[in-house]
Amino acid sequence: MKVFALVAAAATLIAVAAPASAQFAKPEDAIKYRQSSLFVMGQHFGRVGAMASGRAPFDAKVAADNAEIVASMAKLPWAGFGPGTDKGTTKAKAEIWTEQAKFKDSSDKLIVESGKLAAAAKTGNLDAVKTAFAATAATCKACHDAFRAQ
Amino acid sequence: MKVFALVAAAATLIAVAAPASAQFAKPEDAIKYRQSSLFVMGQHFGRVGAMASGRAPFDAKVAADNAEIVASMAKLPWAGFGPGTDKGTTKAKAEIWTEQAKFKDSSDKLIVESGKLAAAAKTGNLDAVKTAFAATAATCKACHDAFRAQ
Repeated sequence: MKVFALVAAAATLIAVAAPASAQFAKPEDAIKYRQSSLFVMGQHFGRVGAMASGRAPFDAKVAADNAEIVASMAKLPWAGFGPGTDKGTTKAKAEIWTEQAKFKDSSDKLIVESGKLAAAAKTGNLDAVKTAFAATAATCKACHDAFRAQ
Repeated sequence: MKVFALVAAAATLIAVAAPASAQFAKPEDAIKYRQSSLFVMGQHFGRVGAMASGRAPFDAKVAADNAEIVASMAKLPWAGFGPGTDKGTTKAKAEIWTEQAKFKDSSDKLIVESGKLAAAAKTGNLDAVKTAFAATAATCKACHDAFRAQ
């Protein structure tokens, strides 16, 4: 019984510890996945930013649609930073893997702030969008400063 | 008054007819955007497919989560096929722009079928997932056969 419990516990541990990269056929796919999802997110984020900064006229519907896509996309890239995905065509710094808790905290912050941005955009209030956009952009910058090579 | 109405109508027409590529800073961004969103979608679709084909054990939650991402991503790539985005690093065939109604019909079908896949996955029924996966995959194939160079 004790042995069975140990085996079961070990199996659970392995399942939990399975690298996120296991979702990808090869490390290159994980790298391409995170870059792709960040790029798609960035395009939509930029459209909200154009309105937040006054470079584009404010259209509440367009802002809400784009912000909602940003909030959805914000959840995706992180699975692509599994073990073994630190080499290749990437600007990812080693700190992503040596300071995993800090990196996770950074990505969590983006998810939270982009969620607030989507909620703000739904209200149709430009000032709320401006505030939430700035807060979200700050999480992008902090993470890039710490974890992305120039 | 009549002149004003005409000008207003023309302005509306221009706004409506503005090429989707106008959302992108340059054609290369539109191409990268559509390729990125299709790649991200493909990764998640592949995970549902692995379960639908029995290559991976069926996990209803994982299937539902991935299928939902597929359904969301399915709406995105098409904005990246605007006028002027037919040249560059792309497998897009000229027919996308010469047979726009057929191309639109193809992308609409993917949106519908991937929506059904997400709904099927939510039920937790593997047979329903298999059926909806096959129908969705068929829309991918039909569109690739017609509009993507080998």
